[in-house]
Formats: sequence, C-alpha cells, structure tokens
Amino acid sequence: MQYLYGSGEAAALSIQAWQALWTYLRNEIGYRRDKSGVRSVALAPGSTLDNPRFEACGKRPMAVVLDIDETVLLNLGYERDEAMRGAGGYDAARWSRWEATGADKVAAVPGAAEALAAARREGFTVIFNSNRSVATAAQTAAALDHAGLGPADLFDTLWLRGEGEPGGKDARRAKIAQRYCIVAMAGDQLGDFSDLFNAPDAAVAARRNSVGGTLLAPLWGAGWFMLPNPVYGTGLKGGVDEIFPPESHWADPQEKK
Amino acid sequence: MQYLYGSGEAAALSIQAWQALWTYLRNEIGYRRDKSGVRSVALAPGSTLDNPRFEACGKRPMAVVLDIDETVLLNLGYERDEAMRGAGGYDAARWSRWEATGADKVAAVPGAAEALAAARREGFTVIFNSNRSVATAAQTAAALDHAGLGPADLFDTLWLRGEGEPGGKDARRAKIAQRYCIVAMAGDQLGDFSDLFNAPDAAVAARRNSVGGTLLAPLWGAGWFMLPNPVYGTGLKGGVDEIFPPESHWADPQEKK
Repeated sequence: MQYLYGSGEAAALSIQAWQALWTYLRNEIGYRRDKSGVRSVALAPGSTLDNPRFEACGKRPMAVVLDIDETVLLNLGYERDEAMRGAGGYDAARWSRWEATGADKVAAVPGAAEALAAARREGFTVIFNSNRSVATAAQTAAALDHAGLGPADLFDTLWLRGEGEPGGKDARRAKIAQRYCIVAMAGDQLGDFSDLFNAPDAAVAARRNSVGGTLLAPLWGAGWFMLPNPVYGTGLKGGVDEIFPPESHWADPQEKK
Repeated sequence: MQYLYGSGEAAALSIQAWQALWTYLRNEIGYRRDKSGVRSVALAPGSTLDNPRFEACGKRPMAVVLDIDETVLLNLGYERDEAMRGAGGYDAARWSRWEATGADKVAAVPGAAEALAAARREGFTVIFNSNRSVATAAQTAAALDHAGLGPADLFDTLWLRGEGEPGGKDARRAKIAQRYCIVAMAGDQLGDFSDLFNAPDAAVAARRNSVGGTLLAPLWGAGWFMLPNPVYGTGLKGGVDEIFPPESHWADPQEKK
C-alpha cells in the first residue's frame, strides 16, 4: 500500500502507462489514413495464449476498454479501512458495502483522467469492463464521475458482473467487440486482457512466462496497457521455490564458513 | 516479492516500460532529421522540481542512462535469500557480499535485454549509473554480462559509487552529461532520475505530487522510464494517515450500527 497509494514511483508508473496508451492511440491509430485494416486487440474466439488471433474490425466504431479498480480508480477509502484493520484478508460482503457507499472516497489513478479525456475528445468510445456488481451500477458510475473519469452508462459504456455470474471478463468483452473495434485495453490484472491467463492449474512460472514468452509480448505498451497493483490480485501467489528458480540459489559466503 | 519476481502482471509492466523506451528512441529521436535541437533529459544544474531545465546537447553522442538493480537486473539470488530469512531487514554487509559473489544468480528484467540490444544497434551508447560499489565493478560487469545486458566498462559505460561517496546519483549523471547527450533514463527509484526527489524532509504526499503535479509529469514514458519495484526503496514509507488523505476516510456502514 505504501508503494501503490503513497509513492512517487508508483505514480510515475501509472502516468507512464496512461501516456503510453494515449501516444499509441494518437500515433498508431489516429494518424492512420486507411483505418480499414485496424484489428481488435481483444483475442478472437478460439485463440490460445500460444496461438492468439485478432480480427479485423471492419467499420465498427473504435473503443478503449478498461478495468476500473486500481486501473482508473484508486479505492482509497476501502484500502485505508483495510490498512487500519491490519491482517484479516478480503471480505466479499465488506467489499459489496464499499461498492454501495464509497463513491466519494476514491481518486483517479494518476494520469487516467487526462488520458480518458484525450481519447474521448478524439472520438474513441471509453468503455469500462469490471467485476463490480451490476447491482451497484449507479454507485460505480457515481464513483467514476467523482474521480473525473465518467460518464459510464450501464450496458453501453459500463459492463459489470451480473448476479451469480462467474468472475471472468471474456464474455462481456465479446459483447463489446460485437459493437466496437477494441483498439486498446488497460488493466491491473492479466484477466483484464484475457481469461486465458487465469487457467486454474497454471504454475506461477508458466503464468509469468505466458506474458513475455509468447506472441503476446509485443502487445504490452502497444494495445495492452498494464497498471501497477502489488496490493491484491491473481498475481500474488507462490512460495519461495515457485518464485525463484533453482539456478538463482545463492548462499551467503559468510555463513558457509 | 510474489508480485515483482513471480507475477505475469509485473513482467508485463516491465516489458511495457522497455518497449516504451525503445519506441521513444526510435520515433522521437531516431527518426529526427535534424538532431541539433535534441535536449538532454537529465536536469540541468540549478534546476528545481518546480522549475526544471534541460540543456541542448550540441554534437555530443547520444546515450541512454540506466540504473542496474531491479531496473535491468533482477537480484534473484539475494532476494531469495532474503525471503528464506524472513524478517530482518537490509544488511549492508550481506549486500556487499552479494555484489562480490552473486554474478551468476541474476536474471534480466523482462524486456530489458531486447531494448538495450536495439538501442546499441541503432548507435545509442548504453551507460549504467548505479550505487553499487566501485570496489566490485568487475563482478557487477560480470552480472550484467551473465544476464545478457553488457558490456559495461568502468568510468565509460559503468558508473558506480566510490568508497565513502554518498548515495546520490546526480554527481555521476553530471559527469556522463559532459560527454554524452542523455536522451533517455530508466530506473526503479525516483533518485534514478534526480536526487531532488529525495529531499530528506519531503512529506510522503509532497514527494508523490512532485511526480505528477509538476512540469516533470510529461517526461514519464517520454524520456524518463520507470520500472516497478514494490520490494525495496525510498518510496516505501509513510503511515496510514500519510498515505491516505483525510477526505478518503470511509467507515463500513455495517459497523456503524
């Protein structure tokens, strides 16, 4: 939390990511004379991480698809409350109450409001795809407005998790892709780009390798934009032996004596 | 550590930063026909964070100046050893032994080796400016070579902290700037860009604001490139009330009953 919510280092990372998104829209999409060849950056149905495919967009209007929490919105009130509680872990019911009552205790991620405003000004539709509940859609839209990130209209530019729906985002991404050409995505979790990253049996090293060791690597910073979040999420797992490979095993020579 | 060394999310952030650096060199510097107007991205003497100045480079050859630890090089062996020890904190003597003996227990930060190779291929000089000790320069150069990041030659493309020297990097940056035009810098700490960020009396919020609330904000992703590091460093400080502003104070309604 000190890093993500308090440090200049994390603020710089966020500003850098949002400026990269805007530079990409301007240089790689906006300045193209012939836009007919633009492809969606959402994986096409049937893709795998090793064999990704991206479909041409035809004449669909261009959109940027974004996660909400810790991507555009800092949940300061919720995280402060967590910090005051100390250990205890995630409580889904408390998070639901936060969604319902915390709309004015948030702030924009550094750089996000400026990037979204620039994208909208140039005619890109800004669409949010979040696992927040559809039951609190009005409060989520209010939170986005409070942070200067809106507007967000349910089932048009705001897509949320329905009652009893699973946590993945691909189904909603597919619905958005039917109407829009998704030219950029941003998130703080790999699942904000594809549910394929979250295969339940993936080893820590394999999941990490799927980011940089596949044909998807060139997308980071060029269509896919990652925001920092070391506080929570699917990336925070693994024991020492899963995180550090055997060849990195160093023994302090002082203690070998 | 799970985040930085184990997650796909952090790998994506790193790849994104290194691809942004390379894209910047190619599009903003490399393609310019008239390079006489290029300015250094190192702050000129007399600058403040509120009043930064950048000098024209004249005919000096172009260079990229990079921090080493957790910017281009992951100190896997040292951090694994730290993780096995559990709490205990930083031990300068153990770190010195690591510098001296750990050269083959490291890996490149995702994306760094490819970006450095591309920069060198296009004629940019790659220069490292690190607070590692000059006494272990040979081992540091060997670690960079092991990770595919070298070459690094002391007092030419490798600048390290001399015996008894303070920790700041501005003095060495100034020496580099006398001989080269610094067109890009990368680091995981604000001090990798300017010592001015590390004023000893700066409040947490003021330090964070100096990143995005000044004329320096446009540099992130466009000359200055930040790498993620939530594991150690000058950004990790502040109590709850320093990190979360009063207006973000949320009380769980369940508990007010």
